[in-house]
Amino acid sequence: MALKTGRGAAAPPFLVMDVIAAANARAATLPPGAPGVLRMEVGQPGGGAPRGAAEAAIRALREDRPMGYTEAFGLPGLRARIADHYRSTYGVAVPASRIAVTVGASGAFPLAFLAAFDAGDRVAMAAPFYPPYANILTALGMQPVLLPCDATTRFQPTLAMLEKLDPLPDGLIVASPCNPAGTMLAPAELSAIARWCHAQGVRLVSDEIYHGLSWGTVAESTAAAFSDSAIVVNSFSKYFSMTGWRIGWLVLPEDLCRPVECLAQNLFISAPHIAQLAAEAAFDCGVELEERKEGYRRARAALLEGLPGAGFDRVAAADGAFYLWCDIGHLTNDSLAFCAGMLAGADIAATPGVDFDRERGHRFLRFSYCGAEAEVVQAPARLRAWLRR
Amino acid sequence: MALKTGRGAAAPPFLVMDVIAAANARAATLPPGAPGVLRMEVGQPGGGAPRGAAEAAIRALREDRPMGYTEAFGLPGLRARIADHYRSTYGVAVPASRIAVTVGASGAFPLAFLAAFDAGDRVAMAAPFYPPYANILTALGMQPVLLPCDATTRFQPTLAMLEKLDPLPDGLIVASPCNPAGTMLAPAELSAIARWCHAQGVRLVSDEIYHGLSWGTVAESTAAAFSDSAIVVNSFSKYFSMTGWRIGWLVLPEDLCRPVECLAQNLFISAPHIAQLAAEAAFDCGVELEERKEGYRRARAALLEGLPGAGFDRVAAADGAFYLWCDIGHLTNDSLAFCAGMLAGADIAATPGVDFDRERGHRFLRFSYCGAEAEVVQAPARLRAWLRR
Repeated sequence: MALKTGRGAAAPPFLVMDVIAAANARAATLPPGAPGVLRMEVGQPGGGAPRGAAEAAIRALREDRPMGYTEAFGLPGLRARIADHYRSTYGVAVPASRIAVTVGASGAFPLAFLAAFDAGDRVAMAAPFYPPYANILTALGMQPVLLPCDATTRFQPTLAMLEKLDPLPDGLIVASPCNPAGTMLAPAELSAIARWCHAQGVRLVSDEIYHGLSWGTVAESTAAAFSDSAIVVNSFSKYFSMTGWRIGWLVLPEDLCRPVECLAQNLFISAPHIAQLAAEAAFDCGVELEERKEGYRRARAALLEGLPGAGFDRVAAADGAFYLWCDIGHLTNDSLAFCAGMLAGADIAATPGVDFDRERGHRFLRFSYCGAEAEVVQAPARLRAWLRR
Repeated sequence: MALKTGRGAAAPPFLVMDVIAAANARAATLPPGAPGVLRMEVGQPGGGAPRGAAEAAIRALREDRPMGYTEAFGLPGLRARIADHYRSTYGVAVPASRIAVTVGASGAFPLAFLAAFDAGDRVAMAAPFYPPYANILTALGMQPVLLPCDATTRFQPTLAMLEKLDPLPDGLIVASPCNPAGTMLAPAELSAIARWCHAQGVRLVSDEIYHGLSWGTVAESTAAAFSDSAIVVNSFSKYFSMTGWRIGWLVLPEDLCRPVECLAQNLFISAPHIAQLAAEAAFDCGVELEERKEGYRRARAALLEGLPGAGFDRVAAADGAFYLWCDIGHLTNDSLAFCAGMLAGADIAATPGVDFDRERGHRFLRFSYCGAEAEVVQAPARLRAWLRR
């Protein structure tokens, strides 16, 4: 008898994973010594964890510390350090008791969604958006409500958009800086949205995983400063460059602390112990991390200078993160085919916009500039040569 | 306005986490030099990862290998090694393409449940049971169906129990060796259950995380040998002693491979990179791991010999894992109070049965014997002295 599968079995893939595979395959066909494929598809810093974080991990292993389960919310030292981070970075007092260390930001979302929402609940978000927001919600039986955004609002939601929703949604996800657009909400905008959500009983989930990576056009602010009911998601994967360590955190409203703790005990037991030790040490790696950030800043500047001349002249405000969201509607209405052609013709991997906006993403692509700086800066010349052919 | 919380916010805690906290608190009150608290509440091997696994992690960090995301299903080398493990351990051919490396067994369950079941679906399991089975199902809107088991069936479900269910459940979870009872299903029983499930369209989830830890009373067998539709869950936390590394795996039926891969891309991205490298090396640590196993074997023997004389003479068949499930109905009908009294009076921490069986667990407790052997063997004398007072 054929066995049933759940609706979760219909979860769409996170397309960029397929792009990575295609780029790997392309790279394997290039002759040795040829210029390689420019990897601009992944949102993964090239450098790995900062040296001090790796050293802390080595030290703990050398000392033969047993890496057992930690408490579900993480090592007290790391939680305290994250609380300090809110004080020193934003001037916001967040008690360590409201910090939950999680298995990356990915592991944080199911905990937040399950604690705050029920199956059938409607959760709004700007489109384009980070695909797992919608895919996780859908897998849990919840409903993404898309707010189509464009350059006129920096690809960010506005209060006016939210007020028009009828009925009001049960939740709202915002991200600043956001993926894929790399744009930000100004502090006054985030504050207004957070206060509106609190007043209307809409649970705000603020994805702040690209904090630390902004370029001075808009100031960074945390929803924790504006709302006691907001859930903040953050991660050591981006600024701290620790993707594969799978370590992130939540700042939780008081009413969700114990529920999320119980969910975490059941769903995760704890985040990886060694990653927690490394993450604590990463807070002391400011010099190295700021050097890397300067590398992203230079790569960004080179792209913003060179891309328009190469035909990519409609780029979203590059406020933060390490992405450029390019409107390529004058070049194609099929971004999947366009990206495939670019990989084959210019040896540049980028992510087609349809991964982030199923409706309108056919006219967009996302460049990531967190790879090796010396490679990323070659992109405009390669693109110009390819598009001229 | 007060914000709503989801039904997930009602997830019960995994009580043993509270017992751990109480044991820590008790230990902190003891004078220096006093005999400490015997930690028999945790299902966590005392020793940490085997040396070769830790060394592999150190080597990778020293070489400055960037620990980026891996493919969602894990490093190809580790997946191949796990497939080899099925060949060498069980004589079963499982292609590496059906192996998914996960964030512990904990991370495997939501993937399996979401891919196989829908909200509202009924999933059967023996009671007593590992609490997160039911808690995760409930958080996902699915319904646990409990099959009350006792010593007459080794606390394991039987075909007769399954056939009586009307309507038939959508799924069945079995565990052999199981937690908390430490009992096993004989190969013929597991085979019969697996074949019945396949024939009836009931999705079998076989939790095999205690494999490698059985004591010769019943042979170990894997559901992967008997059914192409079964989902097998396993982990590096128990035999391989790598709890806090958060690394486990699934053996998936063909029809669930791509759905689970898409879910994993969205919900986890990947398991921790460093843990994957360490896990691969753990397969070469047989000598060290077998030495540890001999320690558990000796601790088990000491307890089975000493506990009856101390008043604990109704112990479930101790076929595997590192647990003894004790019927204490002649001593109490409130296992929570009994365990609290034992912690205060005998300085022994154990887990009250209600964590594993809300109905009948008031008359049971679980001893874990995977802690330091020299400590565990003191338990009978302490218990005897305490119960005499």
